[in-house]
Amino acid sequence: MMPGTQPARGTRDFLPDDIRRREYVVGVVRDVYERYGFEPLETPAFENIDTLLGKYGEEGNKLIFKILKRGEHEASGEADLALRYDLTVPLARVVAQYQNELPRLFKRYQIQPVWRADRPARGRFREFYQCDLDAMGSTSPVVEAEVLGAVSEILTTLGFSDFVVRLNHRRVLTALLEIAGVAAAQHGDALVALDKLDKIGAEGVAKEFSARGIAEAAGVKALTFFTAAPALPESALTWLTGLLAGHEGVANLAAIVRLVESTPAAGRIRLDPSLARGLSYYTGAIMEAAVEGIGSLGGGGRYDDLIGMFLGRDVPACGFSLGLERLIVVMTEREMFPPSVTGGGVDVVVTFMDDESRGEALGLATELRAQERRVDVFPEASRKFDKPLKYASSRGARVMAIFGENERARGEASIRNLQTREQQTVPRDQAAAFIARLLNQEPRTKNQEPRTENLRTLEP
Amino acid sequence: MMPGTQPARGTRDFLPDDIRRREYVVGVVRDVYERYGFEPLETPAFENIDTLLGKYGEEGNKLIFKILKRGEHEASGEADLALRYDLTVPLARVVAQYQNELPRLFKRYQIQPVWRADRPARGRFREFYQCDLDAMGSTSPVVEAEVLGAVSEILTTLGFSDFVVRLNHRRVLTALLEIAGVAAAQHGDALVALDKLDKIGAEGVAKEFSARGIAEAAGVKALTFFTAAPALPESALTWLTGLLAGHEGVANLAAIVRLVESTPAAGRIRLDPSLARGLSYYTGAIMEAAVEGIGSLGGGGRYDDLIGMFLGRDVPACGFSLGLERLIVVMTEREMFPPSVTGGGVDVVVTFMDDESRGEALGLATELRAQERRVDVFPEASRKFDKPLKYASSRGARVMAIFGENERARGEASIRNLQTREQQTVPRDQAAAFIARLLNQEPRTKNQEPRTENLRTLEP
Repeated sequence: MMPGTQPARGTRDFLPDDIRRREYVVGVVRDVYERYGFEPLETPAFENIDTLLGKYGEEGNKLIFKILKRGEHEASGEADLALRYDLTVPLARVVAQYQNELPRLFKRYQIQPVWRADRPARGRFREFYQCDLDAMGSTSPVVEAEVLGAVSEILTTLGFSDFVVRLNHRRVLTALLEIAGVAAAQHGDALVALDKLDKIGAEGVAKEFSARGIAEAAGVKALTFFTAAPALPESALTWLTGLLAGHEGVANLAAIVRLVESTPAAGRIRLDPSLARGLSYYTGAIMEAAVEGIGSLGGGGRYDDLIGMFLGRDVPACGFSLGLERLIVVMTEREMFPPSVTGGGVDVVVTFMDDESRGEALGLATELRAQERRVDVFPEASRKFDKPLKYASSRGARVMAIFGENERARGEASIRNLQTREQQTVPRDQAAAFIARLLNQEPRTKNQEPRTENLRTLEP
Repeated sequence: MMPGTQPARGTRDFLPDDIRRREYVVGVVRDVYERYGFEPLETPAFENIDTLLGKYGEEGNKLIFKILKRGEHEASGEADLALRYDLTVPLARVVAQYQNELPRLFKRYQIQPVWRADRPARGRFREFYQCDLDAMGSTSPVVEAEVLGAVSEILTTLGFSDFVVRLNHRRVLTALLEIAGVAAAQHGDALVALDKLDKIGAEGVAKEFSARGIAEAAGVKALTFFTAAPALPESALTWLTGLLAGHEGVANLAAIVRLVESTPAAGRIRLDPSLARGLSYYTGAIMEAAVEGIGSLGGGGRYDDLIGMFLGRDVPACGFSLGLERLIVVMTEREMFPPSVTGGGVDVVVTFMDDESRGEALGLATELRAQERRVDVFPEASRKFDKPLKYASSRGARVMAIFGENERARGEASIRNLQTREQQTVPRDQAAAFIARLLNQEPRTKNQEPRTENLRTLEP
């Protein structure tokens, strides 16, 4: 029986243009992260299963891909390894493992795929890349300002002119729930419901509050807080100070808002007291980069307790995760990629008319490649040129070089400009220079079609 | 209980210098592959288990990491997915899946990790990168010449001046076994033993021949062939022609040897009739790049039948796989990496003496980063400079900028050259330009230590 040829459910094969788009975005991300003093880190695709279990809540546990024991233990049906589910838990493990080698202030970025057994849906995959940056070792709001500065610089460089950064604080969120009268035991339920405010609106959240047993008066009051708050930072801070005078979280937000003005995130901040971002491990600032009509492009926050799960003592940390797939989808839809990113292909196709000319063809290709040109040798002798020309066209080549017995006898090469369809014979030792001039003359366009009626002139 | 902090057995965490070394090699590989007209391809980390099972022999089946079914099916202990074991089988699947979209000549490269549950050993890991290039759609020896040209150009660019390319042909190997009198049914056994010729010598192979039941006379004769063959291509071809006049495999080798002379593999070829490279799917040329005293850096060959397992019709193909880990280990031992590859770190550390100066510090960092400089802001106010200086030293910074209340009051910044230990106060709006001049003046060296007796002068 022939095996299937589809990739596994929820995963994708990445063809050349997909990879080039991703490499372009990753290149920008990496360049900015490095200028902000972050260092690259990578961890293995799988971890010991105990490293991951229990870190992502009950729902997360179910979505982790687990790897069967091997050899004689395979029959037990037990798993001892699990695929990376995010980049934060492996980071926490690394910080604990290398605590004596890493600097007290450790700034790292990590760009790797993660795997989640979510139900696949449009734009949601079981294998996808995360681009994380995290700074460990300091509680200073300078860290949040730097993280938001880096993320904003990336989005600006990629061409997003319309993004905002939503900002909240875990303890402000809790304090508002408290003064609304939501019982502490119900804060988790309230946050899950609030997280949907964008999607289901205030009425929807109110329904979910009551479904989760939150007292109606408290729910109404909480919703008033979360929908009445002004978004622009100055007025939002005034409003928050009115409700929570002297609150540490408000002071922290005020410091971040002020510092961010000295970074590329200046003017982007919107305070949003309802922003929760699901994750229970945030302890301070909560952040999200979003575009109107598109939604979140990534998010993060401060998590001062997580690393302690591995290290036994707390290490303050703040991080941000950019959604690479989302960025690529939006940039593709909005045609934000420079034309040079995709297309690939080659500059020149070298072809030969008889097997005796193969060495000549390879030799010219070697010369052109030494000059940084992309070159294909059409590998089969062709007396007719329809196949090589079709191939050259499919690869976007602008020039075709041709070797046959006439050329060989005279020590020449025939060079065809595939855009003008002009063909010329030049001495063999000048062929590379001649092609270089042709390539420097005209900008390259994609998929120029050779006119077939001209092919006849190519035949000997 | 605190979870362990080690990476899973046989895997590694990649710290910054590890990643920079790998990125350097991958950058060279990618650049050369693209100049040879190969396009990037990537496939998912896991495949449907049926895609992989049965493709790597009985031993391979055992070494495949298998992923447990999820949800209610988890308890069954069954696996439905498996981690990528090499890059060739996924390629064959892709060619079958996208046969109508891909050109008839399809040249792709793929640089991704693979996973094998081998017993870990020094330099042998369960997660490692492969760098494959494959050309599909043509049986022309031009393809082999192009593949060997690209691999040779990579090794030369990386600084290997002493490599050779061992070359053999599957059908020549079989023909030699035949005329030695080894029964066809024992060719597989003979190849397994022959593959160890380098490691265990002719005597060892002879023992293994007899242990595997190969007739002594045939074994002795075969060994004579495989050890007596001259290595240099011209004499080896003459020798082979004497034994196997008119053999198609010999003619193919002769064509490859001649064509390679027009590529960067010129002068590198050594014919080696004993080269088998284990894999049973080779149908034509078998190739290996090797360095004296170090061994194989990668290998490949022609496999015209493998893709047919997925496609139902054969597609000729020829490929080569470079061992990235091996390259990195050897290059590290031989100190072949340019000094600029590792080190990382930053150019400038900006520090502040009081919280009121944080915005100034971030603002200067933003200016410097806009000029492509790598900059860290030491996130905590420090009246004493031992901590920031120690940090700046650990990050390899050459300049430290300092903001305190004096600087703020006078609209200035203090700039310290960490190499000369000279410190100077400049107007705030000239600080970035002043630092740029300092950084352009002197080459950066690693780990310069500030003299602590000078620190006192920094304090207000």
